[in-house]
Amino acid sequence: MKIMSVNAGSSSLKFSLFEMDTKEVIISGLFERIGIEGGKYTLKYRGDKIIQEIPLDNHVKAVEILLDKLIALEVIGSLNEIEGIGHRVVSGGEKYQKSVLITDSVIEDLIELKDFAPLHNPAHVAAMKAFREVLPEVPMVAVFDTSFHQTMDEISYLYPVPYEWYTKYGVRKYGAHGTSHRYVSKTISEKLHNDHLKIISCHIGNGGSITAICDGKCVDTSMGFTPLAGIMMGTRSGDIDPSIIPYVMEKEGIDAQEAIDALNKKSGLLGLSQYSSDMRDIVDGVNEGKENCLRALNKYVQTIIDYIARYYVRLGGCDVICFTAGVGENSSPVRAKVLEGLACLGIVMDLDQNNNTHGTFAKISADSSKVDVYVVPTDEELMIAQDTIDLIR
Amino acid sequence: MKIMSVNAGSSSLKFSLFEMDTKEVIISGLFERIGIEGGKYTLKYRGDKIIQEIPLDNHVKAVEILLDKLIALEVIGSLNEIEGIGHRVVSGGEKYQKSVLITDSVIEDLIELKDFAPLHNPAHVAAMKAFREVLPEVPMVAVFDTSFHQTMDEISYLYPVPYEWYTKYGVRKYGAHGTSHRYVSKTISEKLHNDHLKIISCHIGNGGSITAICDGKCVDTSMGFTPLAGIMMGTRSGDIDPSIIPYVMEKEGIDAQEAIDALNKKSGLLGLSQYSSDMRDIVDGVNEGKENCLRALNKYVQTIIDYIARYYVRLGGCDVICFTAGVGENSSPVRAKVLEGLACLGIVMDLDQNNNTHGTFAKISADSSKVDVYVVPTDEELMIAQDTIDLIR
Repeated sequence: MKIMSVNAGSSSLKFSLFEMDTKEVIISGLFERIGIEGGKYTLKYRGDKIIQEIPLDNHVKAVEILLDKLIALEVIGSLNEIEGIGHRVVSGGEKYQKSVLITDSVIEDLIELKDFAPLHNPAHVAAMKAFREVLPEVPMVAVFDTSFHQTMDEISYLYPVPYEWYTKYGVRKYGAHGTSHRYVSKTISEKLHNDHLKIISCHIGNGGSITAICDGKCVDTSMGFTPLAGIMMGTRSGDIDPSIIPYVMEKEGIDAQEAIDALNKKSGLLGLSQYSSDMRDIVDGVNEGKENCLRALNKYVQTIIDYIARYYVRLGGCDVICFTAGVGENSSPVRAKVLEGLACLGIVMDLDQNNNTHGTFAKISADSSKVDVYVVPTDEELMIAQDTIDLIR
Repeated sequence: MKIMSVNAGSSSLKFSLFEMDTKEVIISGLFERIGIEGGKYTLKYRGDKIIQEIPLDNHVKAVEILLDKLIALEVIGSLNEIEGIGHRVVSGGEKYQKSVLITDSVIEDLIELKDFAPLHNPAHVAAMKAFREVLPEVPMVAVFDTSFHQTMDEISYLYPVPYEWYTKYGVRKYGAHGTSHRYVSKTISEKLHNDHLKIISCHIGNGGSITAICDGKCVDTSMGFTPLAGIMMGTRSGDIDPSIIPYVMEKEGIDAQEAIDALNKKSGLLGLSQYSSDMRDIVDGVNEGKENCLRALNKYVQTIIDYIARYYVRLGGCDVICFTAGVGENSSPVRAKVLEGLACLGIVMDLDQNNNTHGTFAKISADSSKVDVYVVPTDEELMIAQDTIDLIR
């Protein structure tokens, strides 16, 4: 049974085609610069990389080329073999607490929710419409980044701001990376044969968020109204004193949106190091003795420790801490520094195991550790495909 | 030896005159509406309250009346008996790491630092000049709310924002309530005869901040670039996703400063409860079954627990948690809820002792508690007077 997982941006479309019997990716690819000059696609198939420059007027054109290539490469014999398409959706607001079959009313809701994901939701809708035009009979499913976090109670999701900002404008914590946190939580629960774990899931990539999970349900998460909040990231500040905004607006002569843009794009590792937003560069810089990189690394690690500490207490203790995503799966120095900072909670790292774990599932805590620590490679695409199967069956 | 402690606002002047041999307040008072219609002063002396409406053109006039009253009431025989005056100063920026004797260059610095305390520092300068005009021979000392926090390292005080915002504009964490946290830390260290404690000091009043202290030095604190950050307060939001600001600006048609004003004045307990900024009202409301009050109380308590959790880990464990200021000293229900939320750290409350402690020094943790918990009434005025004596001697 073949299911396609789709992640569409305003000028891009990523896809993976899964054989769900084996959960393997048969082919994956990326269409770039849709609707703008310089269209291009890249396909990964049987170890080969196929790159082609080609005008991509709109998402419909990209989908047509994609499906033609699947036939041409004999990935599938006919389009009927694609039994479902799952779309990643950045914001489901408060309305979508689970993945759903895509209907006209779902599409209308996504357009209405564009306030909460102004760049992403309209792009998702464009991709949905494109696939529906080309493959009208294939059922489609929307899988929301936010839905996993809808189990938070109001003490976690409300901000201490005028309450009418919530009731009138929807100002609350929505969170992000929900599909990843759900995948990680499900995977570790299955591996440990225990559905009643207290888990702190650390999705640490270029963006990053930390989620407190109890019995498979999100209790709290570090991202907020938008993905700017929480821990320090590659280019995002995470939590800061909001009073900095009007102060910097005046000093720099910029408006509020430009200040927020600076917090999203020029802050985090990049801002503090003035060197790179990529943790690999930062770690290399630290090894070369660069103080600016050390400063950025230490601050980054501290914000992760801070959130783990508060979620440890929030959950009333914790059974498992999981690291996932680019940095979480691959950067043993970051994991080591985080775990060293948690020593007072009785957390003990297995140094060798940590050093030897890069992108694979592994336990990296010592047997003496009071909390088990695992690296759990995330797979949002597979989670989307799995939700799609579950809903179309 | 008599020392006066002064806390001046733009239109107000509070003072306490201490007999430092006994550390007792001989007389205290408040001058209000200085420079605006409806001037008035209130004095507390020997159990009496003296209230008088009188025009107060400026701070000099208020100081003149104050000193006249001290003579007239025979509090002092002559002005020479006042041997020093300590001024509370909201911001000493990065320059002042300790209290200092006030000189012309200190006054110039305070004027320069007005960016960081636009309402307060100019008022402090006005009061200093007024006292100097009337009592030119009496030495004066500046005691900064921020100086205790100057021992933070850069990992605590830097924000993950463009680094040049720090180097060019001074965007960093300064903290507040430093004099109170220092007093509390000093008091508990003296009481326990131990200068090497790890302390989490919770100053919880209408404003509030939590400070991690090791060996008498501040390691980190919850207030930030301004006193808006950190835990939820009476009318202040504390930490929120900064992206809320441009979103609410657009929805409400307000500018950035108005949004920040709403976060300072219409948020916190008041914002979430839509009822009151005063914890006593909120607790009464909860007892009457008001859900809006319960929501505000629970969120408030959660933000305190969150900060204690992160500072517990930051300090690598903790010896003592102290509660101080209006709510911290007097609200046993708030303390109880905070301590219940910290149970997984081995913290055990003595329920009776907590219920019976209101504004007095007391241990409120059980003997079985892994962390000792105390109520330590704060006394910033005495701390200011003490610093003044130390510097003029």
